Amino acid sequence: MLVRELMFLQLFRPGAAACVGDLFLPPPKIEPSRLYFFIWNIFDKGKMKLPGLIDPHVHLREPGAAHKEDWDTGTAAALAGGFTAVLTMPNTNPPIINAQSLAIAEQAASSKARCDYAHYLGAGPHNSHELAELAPRAAGLKMYLDNTYGPLRLDDMSLWMEHFARWPRGMPIVAHAESRTMAGGILLSALFDRPVHIAHVSLREEILLIRLAKEKGIKVTCEVAPHHLFLSTDDLPALGAGRGEVRPRLASPVDREALWANLEVIDCFATDHAPHTLEEKDSFNPPPGFPGLETALPLLLTAVSGGRLSLDDLVARMHINPRRIFSLPEQPETWVEVDPLAEWEIRAENMHTRCAWTPFDGWKVRGQVQRVVLRGREVYRLGENTDRGEIRASPGSGRNLRDIS
Amino acid sequence: MLVRELMFLQLFRPGAAACVGDLFLPPPKIEPSRLYFFIWNIFDKGKMKLPGLIDPHVHLREPGAAHKEDWDTGTAAALAGGFTAVLTMPNTNPPIINAQSLAIAEQAASSKARCDYAHYLGAGPHNSHELAELAPRAAGLKMYLDNTYGPLRLDDMSLWMEHFARWPRGMPIVAHAESRTMAGGILLSALFDRPVHIAHVSLREEILLIRLAKEKGIKVTCEVAPHHLFLSTDDLPALGAGRGEVRPRLASPVDREALWANLEVIDCFATDHAPHTLEEKDSFNPPPGFPGLETALPLLLTAVSGGRLSLDDLVARMHINPRRIFSLPEQPETWVEVDPLAEWEIRAENMHTRCAWTPFDGWKVRGQVQRVVLRGREVYRLGENTDRGEIRASPGSGRNLRDIS
Repeated sequence: MLVRELMFLQLFRPGAAACVGDLFLPPPKIEPSRLYFFIWNIFDKGKMKLPGLIDPHVHLREPGAAHKEDWDTGTAAALAGGFTAVLTMPNTNPPIINAQSLAIAEQAASSKARCDYAHYLGAGPHNSHELAELAPRAAGLKMYLDNTYGPLRLDDMSLWMEHFARWPRGMPIVAHAESRTMAGGILLSALFDRPVHIAHVSLREEILLIRLAKEKGIKVTCEVAPHHLFLSTDDLPALGAGRGEVRPRLASPVDREALWANLEVIDCFATDHAPHTLEEKDSFNPPPGFPGLETALPLLLTAVSGGRLSLDDLVARMHINPRRIFSLPEQPETWVEVDPLAEWEIRAENMHTRCAWTPFDGWKVRGQVQRVVLRGREVYRLGENTDRGEIRASPGSGRNLRDIS
Repeated sequence: MLVRELMFLQLFRPGAAACVGDLFLPPPKIEPSRLYFFIWNIFDKGKMKLPGLIDPHVHLREPGAAHKEDWDTGTAAALAGGFTAVLTMPNTNPPIINAQSLAIAEQAASSKARCDYAHYLGAGPHNSHELAELAPRAAGLKMYLDNTYGPLRLDDMSLWMEHFARWPRGMPIVAHAESRTMAGGILLSALFDRPVHIAHVSLREEILLIRLAKEKGIKVTCEVAPHHLFLSTDDLPALGAGRGEVRPRLASPVDREALWANLEVIDCFATDHAPHTLEEKDSFNPPPGFPGLETALPLLLTAVSGGRLSLDDLVARMHINPRRIFSLPEQPETWVEVDPLAEWEIRAENMHTRCAWTPFDGWKVRGQVQRVVLRGREVYRLGENTDRGEIRASPGSGRNLRDIS
């Protein structure tokens, strides 16, 4: 009964987007409607079906640091978190900056990935020509314009201009660009009249400037990471200095609330899954980054339960928008079954990421992934009487989304 | 004879702008022409007349640090350098950020200034409303978006937006904004569709981005300081660490050459005259800044002699463009008499600035101010057989340009 009520409220609340229905249709295709979605869900034993989630910002650490994560454990974590597709970042070792390093990453992915994926290429000072040729094989161009983990960073704006000029039109550009650097990235979007996607927005000034730029017709989109929606500098004492290190840093409570207040400006929720081991995080020189694949959906479903977010808001930002922004193919017969009312506790020991910790350890959440189906095959199932699930997809069963037309 | 040849070459070289003539016309007004200008000059005993120069970027240190410079010595230095108008920066002590502090600066200027002037207002975190009301009395709004000398700095871009939204349209906005911060300033110009003037451009990436922004129709103008045209990091060892401190810092030789190569993108030459005493510059914690009022014109005339610059280029950037950009009134019967062939050596002891040093000490230059006339009165005259001149304007004879309609 409660599920039905939740569904009803989500579907018919004022201002809800009408775009969720078509994602849940089982074959044969029927004209989508909210009512259909509603009826289909309430007859399906109280479970909720979501489309396969897409995470456009994931660090899988392979090649180069498989002790933190590799294509096997990282894509297992993705499935356990309800993500059937991940776009992976190029700041590996070696970084993905040319044909040779891309081939290394492609080889690792094709033999190990359990979910679908695509690889970003990293903009460097001398590779704008080569990357433009590799673009069709890539998730997009990643430009590190501010400090991050790893050596990729473009300091000189004339290099930004080179990449904007040469990268094929219609292929995505993602910028790690904070504060005024972000403003610079948006200016280039305007000057070159091409879309730019701003990664992990965390500050009030950023979301307000993106709002204004969108209002003025600049082709900017953006993503926010769940840790910037649910954590702030107030959480740093409890997390500890090393475990609290992340880029962009955890921001003030005012910044965090500004993100919630400008939800309509946020196009995607992206985890920025950035695993490091606890030994590394607790070391004298802790690397920045949080794992996030297995906590994003439960945290956001909890916000849905709490009324901060609608289910439409969630699906738009975790499936519809990333699919559109990155021109990703449909994953047929792919969905995530969720119990929206299940209350459980996030525990690192139940997670599949190799890094074996989470900044949300011990958080009580509402909403749990029960089963994931990818291209008609069950790839994840929650265990009985446990909060740990079983990965049923075999390594190498994931597909490169750029090989799918 | 040489003067005549110089004039001839300057006036009739291919591509020379046609806009110089009208600045040199003695009454009665005759339709300006290059030929007129040419003939007028060669009959005037080999002297060259320039319009009264305008420096849109000057720090006079009063109120608060008159031991470095005050309105008397600073405007004396201006006249000796050929500047009959200076726009003065608000990072004094107190900073010029409200009606009360503006009144203090106005009082100092009206009693001491020997040349004409106008005061910038400094954008702060809480004064966008008040400054908008004071705008008609101001040279413009100065926004410090990067580190500078003094406490004025706007870190949060949402504060930039407030000032852009409230400052009256048609009144100038000047931004101290380097590199990607500059890109942010230009983005705001685009988003609010209003002009922004970028102070002291020093980097290749900056001038290239401004070029692109201008090509795309964004209303951006910019200025370059002579020290960024004539000095680079190569000069730091000879200058010494403290005397070499300036913001923006001296840039690489590649940056310096990029400024010359993109001369057409530069709207103004502005000295960023920023005096500190030698004791301060040679101290353990040297403040950034160079004096520049008395060296700018000789250095640039030397570049004219050397063929790097035309006289048209110089007059456009030191009179025509600043007058247009800042909507300054005409100074009638005002000119600067120059001997373009005089070779002399810059020496701090001949200068009128109180700070008593220059980074160009000992430089041999070609082109010397001989006499300055402001509103029909001789205000400066070079001494006989000396490189030091006499200031003939009395303190308080300078006028506030915003009081002249």
